[in-house]
Amino acid sequence: MGVGDVSKRILLGRKLRSSQLGETLLPKRIALPVFASDALSSVAYAPDEVFIMLSVAGVSAYAFSWKIGIVVAIVMLTVVASYRQNVHAYPSGGGDYEVATVNLGRTAGVTVASALLVDYVLTVAVSVSSGVQNAGSALPFVQGHETEWAVLLVLVLTAMNLRGVRESGAFFAVPTYGFMVGVIGMAIYGAFRAASGDLPKVESADLTIRPEAGYGGHIGQLALIFLLARAFSSGCAALTGVEAISNGVPAFRKPKSKNAATTLLLLGSIAITMLLSIVILAREMGLKYVDPNQLDRLRQADGSALPAGYDEHTVIAQISRAVFDGFSPGFYYVVAMTGIILILAANTAFNGFPVLGSILAKDGFMPRALGSRGDRLAYSNGILILAGFAVVLIVAFRAEPTRLIQLYIVGVFVSFNLSQLGMIRHWTRHLKTETDHAARRRMYRSRAINTFGLAMTAVVFVIVLLTKFLAGAWIAILAMIVFFALMQGIHRHYDRVAKELIVDERDIVLPTRVHAIVLVSKLHKPTMRALAFAKATRPNILEGVLVDIDPSSTDKILEEWDKRRIDIPLKVLYSPYREIIRPIVEYAISIREANPRGVVAVYIPEYVVGHWWEQLLHNQTALRLKGRLLFTPGVMVTSVPYQLESSEAAREREAWNDTRVKAGDVRRGRTLNRR
Amino acid sequence: MGVGDVSKRILLGRKLRSSQLGETLLPKRIALPVFASDALSSVAYAPDEVFIMLSVAGVSAYAFSWKIGIVVAIVMLTVVASYRQNVHAYPSGGGDYEVATVNLGRTAGVTVASALLVDYVLTVAVSVSSGVQNAGSALPFVQGHETEWAVLLVLVLTAMNLRGVRESGAFFAVPTYGFMVGVIGMAIYGAFRAASGDLPKVESADLTIRPEAGYGGHIGQLALIFLLARAFSSGCAALTGVEAISNGVPAFRKPKSKNAATTLLLLGSIAITMLLSIVILAREMGLKYVDPNQLDRLRQADGSALPAGYDEHTVIAQISRAVFDGFSPGFYYVVAMTGIILILAANTAFNGFPVLGSILAKDGFMPRALGSRGDRLAYSNGILILAGFAVVLIVAFRAEPTRLIQLYIVGVFVSFNLSQLGMIRHWTRHLKTETDHAARRRMYRSRAINTFGLAMTAVVFVIVLLTKFLAGAWIAILAMIVFFALMQGIHRHYDRVAKELIVDERDIVLPTRVHAIVLVSKLHKPTMRALAFAKATRPNILEGVLVDIDPSSTDKILEEWDKRRIDIPLKVLYSPYREIIRPIVEYAISIREANPRGVVAVYIPEYVVGHWWEQLLHNQTALRLKGRLLFTPGVMVTSVPYQLESSEAAREREAWNDTRVKAGDVRRGRTLNRR
Repeated sequence: MGVGDVSKRILLGRKLRSSQLGETLLPKRIALPVFASDALSSVAYAPDEVFIMLSVAGVSAYAFSWKIGIVVAIVMLTVVASYRQNVHAYPSGGGDYEVATVNLGRTAGVTVASALLVDYVLTVAVSVSSGVQNAGSALPFVQGHETEWAVLLVLVLTAMNLRGVRESGAFFAVPTYGFMVGVIGMAIYGAFRAASGDLPKVESADLTIRPEAGYGGHIGQLALIFLLARAFSSGCAALTGVEAISNGVPAFRKPKSKNAATTLLLLGSIAITMLLSIVILAREMGLKYVDPNQLDRLRQADGSALPAGYDEHTVIAQISRAVFDGFSPGFYYVVAMTGIILILAANTAFNGFPVLGSILAKDGFMPRALGSRGDRLAYSNGILILAGFAVVLIVAFRAEPTRLIQLYIVGVFVSFNLSQLGMIRHWTRHLKTETDHAARRRMYRSRAINTFGLAMTAVVFVIVLLTKFLAGAWIAILAMIVFFALMQGIHRHYDRVAKELIVDERDIVLPTRVHAIVLVSKLHKPTMRALAFAKATRPNILEGVLVDIDPSSTDKILEEWDKRRIDIPLKVLYSPYREIIRPIVEYAISIREANPRGVVAVYIPEYVVGHWWEQLLHNQTALRLKGRLLFTPGVMVTSVPYQLESSEAAREREAWNDTRVKAGDVRRGRTLNRR
Repeated sequence: MGVGDVSKRILLGRKLRSSQLGETLLPKRIALPVFASDALSSVAYAPDEVFIMLSVAGVSAYAFSWKIGIVVAIVMLTVVASYRQNVHAYPSGGGDYEVATVNLGRTAGVTVASALLVDYVLTVAVSVSSGVQNAGSALPFVQGHETEWAVLLVLVLTAMNLRGVRESGAFFAVPTYGFMVGVIGMAIYGAFRAASGDLPKVESADLTIRPEAGYGGHIGQLALIFLLARAFSSGCAALTGVEAISNGVPAFRKPKSKNAATTLLLLGSIAITMLLSIVILAREMGLKYVDPNQLDRLRQADGSALPAGYDEHTVIAQISRAVFDGFSPGFYYVVAMTGIILILAANTAFNGFPVLGSILAKDGFMPRALGSRGDRLAYSNGILILAGFAVVLIVAFRAEPTRLIQLYIVGVFVSFNLSQLGMIRHWTRHLKTETDHAARRRMYRSRAINTFGLAMTAVVFVIVLLTKFLAGAWIAILAMIVFFALMQGIHRHYDRVAKELIVDERDIVLPTRVHAIVLVSKLHKPTMRALAFAKATRPNILEGVLVDIDPSSTDKILEEWDKRRIDIPLKVLYSPYREIIRPIVEYAISIREANPRGVVAVYIPEYVVGHWWEQLLHNQTALRLKGRLLFTPGVMVTSVPYQLESSEAAREREAWNDTRVKAGDVRRGRTLNRR
């Protein structure tokens, strides 16, 4: 409870009054949407990026689009197959970080963690930017103000998550199934119209594309390969989020691993279907799509420039507008669902980032405080850090998915690779001890799958690195290195402290006696209570201590002390410069010096108030004094609280907060039961 | 010690290593410059404002300038005479706030305090702005960037004061005497040149002034009177700072009151001499001076407009440039000294604001924490608040003294008036009991002087209010009302708490027994020490308490507990949701409920680290737990600290800080003796 509390309360509303956290497990039909938004939403921008890359060589290169789509689909199937092995081997939900740490050691684990942290930030930035871009295809007032809208959306997501969204199955199911129905419905209707021969053209069908300088006319073999590699790298953005299920196995109904594996396969199949549908429809409907920053490379059929203010709509928007050309609600439905699922994907990162932070904290790579679930601040800080980085990226790259995507995926493939490598080690290790024949055969099969997965993802990783490093991936890699160094530094610090704290024989010696002093500044209820409590502990010596900063009030207290017949001696400390803290600290030190094997117990009467502004007005001296005494060896500091009436409000507030719902609870199998 | 500490250390440099505060008293020759900068510096802008006001009616109104100067001088003499009575009656240095509180009650005292707080802010804003304006007369690169330079200067002053300036007599004496020598030397040399008939004209002598719309030609009697009243009000800015000595009587050598009174008279005489010299010289040398925002009202002799980029130099700058026309070092010396003394005057407010805050805190009108001298934070916060407000004013009024001056003086005259009224009451009350004839005669004389002073300042106050309210004084008055309401609210809160804390009979009952629990999270040195200390207090029941958030580590601790043969029972608390704090709080409550007359002593092992970033990494749970336990009745919380090696640095830092020099020490008779 601090100064910021009031403004937070205004901004975020009254905290949820809740009581008990319960546990419900997810059936597959709910688990799919809960974990799918991130993976499926990338269908909204991956095709766009493929077409943008191919357009560099002019429209003729579009012939490669469906081939690239199929290669991406193959990679995705491989990754899905690999992660199905992870899910079986690590049903605890630790995900890539756990797999890498257990099998490859700390350094690999921290590397994966850095990659994931960076990726969460990018998920927010890319998803929100793409969502705003899609919204711009339907809502003209968004066009030209994408950055502002994207930042606003991130802030709204931040506020929602700080407040504690009450997540439920429906929260995920409605938009995710809505998006699937929209895109697959569009594909089926498009296929139907193609079969009946009246598949319409998209709005950009009549345009022509001027290749980029150097790619005009006949281009070299090498340049073409590099171009296709870049297009493929961008298309691999569709793979992000596939690994999410491996973190959430504990939330599944039993048999957990089997259900998770099935859901993963389902997710992969749906994503591939949607991706290929969009790529093929776009190709068939004559889409022309270039980098929105190079719109001058588009020409009208007669060779003239585009009209001023031309806005290039996203691929999904162009297709759905054309397919549903006589039925505009269809268009609006698809675009709206696309926008919503992208925001949902961003929200996923808001859940994942603090959860990963808490796991890292438990392992000593992040401040320990982040590791306790009860800590509102921990989650809040995680959310704010994530939002801060995402806003910086959005502003720096003006909310352009095309530019942000250059930073993306590197992190994903770092963790794919290390995870697969870890899985190979895992199976190899288990094969050493396993004797059951059937089990061994399954393990061999699993290892083969993971090995193939590693080979595949390693190749993709190298391609991504080569094609994207200079285009922006270096920023993501730099950020990973910073996170990595930070986490290693924190771990080293904890290690050093732990070593310093190892118990040795001297620590078992009991202090010979206790000299208790009760700080007296006034004779009021808190002081009386502190005297009573101190007396109840029956120390060897007990005395009240009063710092004389104002002779007249000192005399008054001494007088009242006598009048009340308090049977404890009251010592007055002289303070020529009217300081309070120094005389007390020096007195404590002198007691300790006189008897080095004794312990000094300092009792501080405190009164407890309920509002942040009241806290500003009280107990500052007590707080500072406690801070100083902690540095004094042989001293223990006891706060004797006296609860003022107003403190009741604060106590209740804290109790509520303990039990309130936290972001990400659903995917960890926790729900809220209201009393 | 918080996160900000490192950046502060970088910005403000290493803290002074100091040891002992001493006390030295000021002889008159040093006391004069220490307290004079504020009062004398106003000579730098008061004449300018008089001429600006008169220029509204055209140059003919300049005939009134010396008359206005004389009226201001008379008011100043009256105020000086009145404050000489204050100094004798209240040698404790409480100043206007004390006089008003003692004689007129709390409301009057708080009113004066609000006025003074607002005035400190305005002193900074006006002095710095005027200093920058003067600098602009000599340094062309300052022209046109006054706001930026003024803000920069405030920031430099803030940093200096946060760091703790080592003030000394010379720090004040050199610039103050330098300024006196400059201005009075200029006046004497000017008088000499006038006597020998070659007094030169200032640079603006050949210009003509177009009166403001409505003041052209023959103006009405009423309009003229109003104009003169406004000019007089602005001239009264010269009175600010006269009261400073009444706050500083304790710093004078004995006989304190007599020396202070003499110094006050000296100060008044010098200020009047300087003010009248400047006004008369300006008049004789043909100065033409208008509001810098209305330069178009100035015309060249031939009626043509001023050349583009014309900069109107301050009155002091124009006079000194002309008087020393063959000797430019004279000009630069006067302008430099003017700038320096203005900055020194602003620095005065940086000393006065936190000191007044600490007095108000002691009386319960400000957070008590501000009242303790030892508190670095209290002073720092005062300095930062003052600087913040001053910067806002400077930016809002674009560092134009002419506009800022409209807000000034209201506060000064509020405190002048209430102080004089309080003095009249003071003498009347003393006359009731005094029997000595000579003493009674002196009191009658003093009361007469204060009555005359009140009459005079009341009239001036009404004039200032009438002429300046709409021009900006309303802002100052509004700010005073806000401060007033805030201080009264704080006082009411403290009153209410004090009532709630009055001891009654129930408070003397001793708890029947002590149930001590030691929190165990690991078995390391801090835990062992906490167990030993807790055992040394010999409670009725003693047990270790471990929250089971991770079964494997719980088992390990239980095992080690047995292995070490610790003869204290260890209780394990079940925590289904891996919370730490709630199970402990609930256990403490249950102990208390089972035995409502007993007391629960919770021992928390803590380790103490030295760097802010280490604190981020440790003890967050302990902190939060302590915060929660304080709200639980019947519980006392004991921190058992274990000092890590790195804590030594922090301990030393804190010890240094206790003894470091604070801004304003010199004028309270405190100096620093290095060991």
